[in-house]
Amino acid sequence: MTYRYKSPLAPKKFNKIKAIAGIDLYIYSAGLYNKQRNDIALFIFKKPGSIAEVFTKSSIKSHTLNWNKKNLKSKTVNAIFINSGNANTFTGNQGIKSISDLANKILNQYNVPVNKLFVCSTGVIGEPFPIKKILSEISKTRLPSKDWSQATKAIMTTDTFPKGITRSFKFNDSKSYITGISKGSGMIEPNMATMLGFVFIEIDMPKKLLQKLLTEVTDDTFNKITVDGDESTNDTVILTSTNRLAPKRAIKSLKDPQIKTFQKQLKFVFKYLAELIVRDGEGASKLITIIVKNARSELQAKKIAKSIGNSTLFKTAIYGEDANWGRIVMAISKTYEAIDQKKLKIFFGNYKVTHNGAENKINSNSKIKNYLKRKEIKIIVDLGLGKNSYDILTCDLSHKYIDINASYKS
Amino acid sequence: MTYRYKSPLAPKKFNKIKAIAGIDLYIYSAGLYNKQRNDIALFIFKKPGSIAEVFTKSSIKSHTLNWNKKNLKSKTVNAIFINSGNANTFTGNQGIKSISDLANKILNQYNVPVNKLFVCSTGVIGEPFPIKKILSEISKTRLPSKDWSQATKAIMTTDTFPKGITRSFKFNDSKSYITGISKGSGMIEPNMATMLGFVFIEIDMPKKLLQKLLTEVTDDTFNKITVDGDESTNDTVILTSTNRLAPKRAIKSLKDPQIKTFQKQLKFVFKYLAELIVRDGEGASKLITIIVKNARSELQAKKIAKSIGNSTLFKTAIYGEDANWGRIVMAISKTYEAIDQKKLKIFFGNYKVTHNGAENKINSNSKIKNYLKRKEIKIIVDLGLGKNSYDILTCDLSHKYIDINASYKS
Repeated sequence: MTYRYKSPLAPKKFNKIKAIAGIDLYIYSAGLYNKQRNDIALFIFKKPGSIAEVFTKSSIKSHTLNWNKKNLKSKTVNAIFINSGNANTFTGNQGIKSISDLANKILNQYNVPVNKLFVCSTGVIGEPFPIKKILSEISKTRLPSKDWSQATKAIMTTDTFPKGITRSFKFNDSKSYITGISKGSGMIEPNMATMLGFVFIEIDMPKKLLQKLLTEVTDDTFNKITVDGDESTNDTVILTSTNRLAPKRAIKSLKDPQIKTFQKQLKFVFKYLAELIVRDGEGASKLITIIVKNARSELQAKKIAKSIGNSTLFKTAIYGEDANWGRIVMAISKTYEAIDQKKLKIFFGNYKVTHNGAENKINSNSKIKNYLKRKEIKIIVDLGLGKNSYDILTCDLSHKYIDINASYKS
Repeated sequence: MTYRYKSPLAPKKFNKIKAIAGIDLYIYSAGLYNKQRNDIALFIFKKPGSIAEVFTKSSIKSHTLNWNKKNLKSKTVNAIFINSGNANTFTGNQGIKSISDLANKILNQYNVPVNKLFVCSTGVIGEPFPIKKILSEISKTRLPSKDWSQATKAIMTTDTFPKGITRSFKFNDSKSYITGISKGSGMIEPNMATMLGFVFIEIDMPKKLLQKLLTEVTDDTFNKITVDGDESTNDTVILTSTNRLAPKRAIKSLKDPQIKTFQKQLKFVFKYLAELIVRDGEGASKLITIIVKNARSELQAKKIAKSIGNSTLFKTAIYGEDANWGRIVMAISKTYEAIDQKKLKIFFGNYKVTHNGAENKINSNSKIKNYLKRKEIKIIVDLGLGKNSYDILTCDLSHKYIDINASYKS
C-alpha cells in the first residue's frame, strides 16, 4: 500500500543520484501491488564486486536473510535483487524454494552465479511469495535504466518519498562516487528495522575492512534511529564496491589516511539515508533529536535515549506541541537507571525546563510553546553523572500513524 | 484533565462497594483541577491497622513513595491520604516539605501519628505540589462519607470511569469483606504504572504474610497488564487490614486452609481492578488477552507476551480490525528469542492463522474479520518449545489515545 500523501518532513526536492560505473540497473513491474507501479530493482555488476552486509537481530528472519548470509561467505557480489510488496518472511518452504527459483532464473538470464546473488524483500509478512509473477516479469527483456532514482521508487512500501543520495570526492587523482538508496518508514528501531539500505562505492579495499567499516558506520547512523520501537524481520544494509579505483598503497586499516575523506563522505551518506527514514516515519510531523549527555556510561545514555525515543506518551506530547517534560522524567525513570534528580537537567532546545530537582520557573512557557511549533525539535537530557553521551533521532506519534497502520493489510 | 467521554470497554454499571468497618472516609474538593470535582480521599483507621505496599521500580519516584517506604517499616497504618491532580514527582524540596506539612496537618486534625500516615499522589509530574490549597481544604470540618464510591471518583485522573469492587465471604463464622478501589489509564506497563490500588481487608494475619500475599497477588494481576509500555513514577498498591476478624489458630503461612477462600476472593478483586484499568486504557476500544504457551521458560513466555502487548504496530492493527498477524511474528521476533517457525502456532481466538512456518490457508478470512470486530480479542501464541506459559492483558492503540495524550498538560 502506498500513499499519495507525502510526509511534511520530506526534503523539499529529491537529490539527483548518479549511477555507479560498472553496475547495470534493471527495473521491473511484476504487479506485486494492486496499482500499477515498479516493484523490482535488479543491480547487475559487470565484474564481481566486494560486498558487506548487516542484518536484523530479530529471531524470525526473512528467508532472504538466510540466503544472503550463506552467500556472504565469499564476500563477492554479482547481483542484488530487491522487491517490494512481499517480505518473504514466514512463508515456509514456498518462500525458501522461491529464492532458489529466482536465483536460477537470474543465472539463466544474466549469467549471475547463484552464490553471488543477494536478495532483499520488503512488504507484508506471511503471505506466499509471489514468485510466479516475478519470474514471468523478469523473463522480459529490458534495457538497463540509467536513472537510479527508479530504484529508490521501486523499493518503497509505506514510504511517502524516495530516498537516495550521491556524494563525490577525490580519491587519489580520480573522482570517486558514493551512491546510496534506502527505504523504511514503520517498524523502525535502533537495531535497524523494515529498512533496507544499499550503498555503492568504488574504492578497492580488503573485504574484511569493508565489513568492519559497514558495521561501524551503521552503528553510528541506522542504529540510532527509531520510529515506533518495532523491529523488522527484514532489515538489511548492504555496502558494495565495484573496486574500480585502486589505492596507491594497499589499505590495511580504517585509519589509513587515503580513505579519510572517503569515510567522512560515507558517513554523511549513511546519516542522511537514516535521517530520511525518520523524516518518513509513519505519520511523522516532527523530527526529534534526543541527546543524552554526561551519563555514567555510553550504555546508560543509550538506554535513556531509547526509552525517551520509544515512549508513546512522550511522542504523542511532542505531536501535540505539549511541553509535558514530566513524560521525559517518566521515560528516564522507567529505565531503572540510578539518577540524581537534583543534577538532572532537561532542555527543549535551549530552554531549560528543570532546575534542582523541580520545574525551572525562569523560562516563559510561551517561548517553549513557540519552540515546540517547529518541525525539528531537540531534547537534551544532561544527567550530570559522568562524561558519556548518546543521541538518537526519532519522530512524533500522530493520528496519521494510526490511520496508516490500522489498515495496512486489509 | 478529565473527559466526559467514557471508554467503550467500561462495565455496564458500577459495582456497589461497601465501606469497611473501622475505617472512616473523608472526601474533599481542594480545587486541584480547573473544574469543580472531588480530588482528595482520606481514609482514617479508628484503630491502627496492618499495611503492606508495593511500589514502582522506576528510578525517579514520587516523593510520596519515599515517605511511604520509611513509614512502611512498622507496617502499621492509621491513615491513607490520596490526591489526584498532581503527582508530587520532580517537585524538589517543595514537594518533600509539602508531605511533612500535610502530615502535621493530619496529625492535628485527625490525631494520626506522622509515621502512620501513607500518602499517594497522582496527576501531572513536575508542577509544584499544591499544598496550600490542600491544607486550606482539609482544615474544613467534614463528616465521614459512607459512600466509598466517592473515593473511587476522587482519585480519577484520565480515567473515564470509577473503579471499585467489594466481595464478601465467610471467614470462620463471620461475614468478611474485601473492598478494593483503583485508578489508572495511561502509563500502564507490567511493572505497574500510573496506577494506584487500595485494597482493604479485615482478617488479622501476620504483617510479614500480608506483604508476601500482596507481592504475590500483584505479580499475578497488576503486573500482567499493559496499556502503552510507559511506566509511572507513582505506582502503588496498598493492602491494609483492620484486623477485625481474628483467625481460630494463628496464621503462619499463606497455605493455611483458614485463608483459602479469602485468598481466592482477594485474587478476584485484584484481577478485576487490574482488568478495569486496561478497560479504561487511554483510547482503548478492544480488550486484548495475549496468552503465550508452551514456552521454554516462563521468562521466555513473558518476554514475548510483553513484546506483543507493547507493539504499537500490533495494537494499531487490532484497533483497525486488521488480521495482520505478521506483526505478531515481528513482535515475537524482536525479542531475539530462538523460535522454531515450523512449530509456532498463532491463533486469533479459535482461528489458527499459521501452519508449518507459513500462513494457514484453511481459515476463511471473513470469519477472522468477524472475530476481530469483537470488543474482546484473544491472541494465543503456541511456541511448541516447552511447557511454560504467561498471559497479559492489554488494549489497542487508537486515534483516541493520540487525542488524549497530545494535550494532557497544555
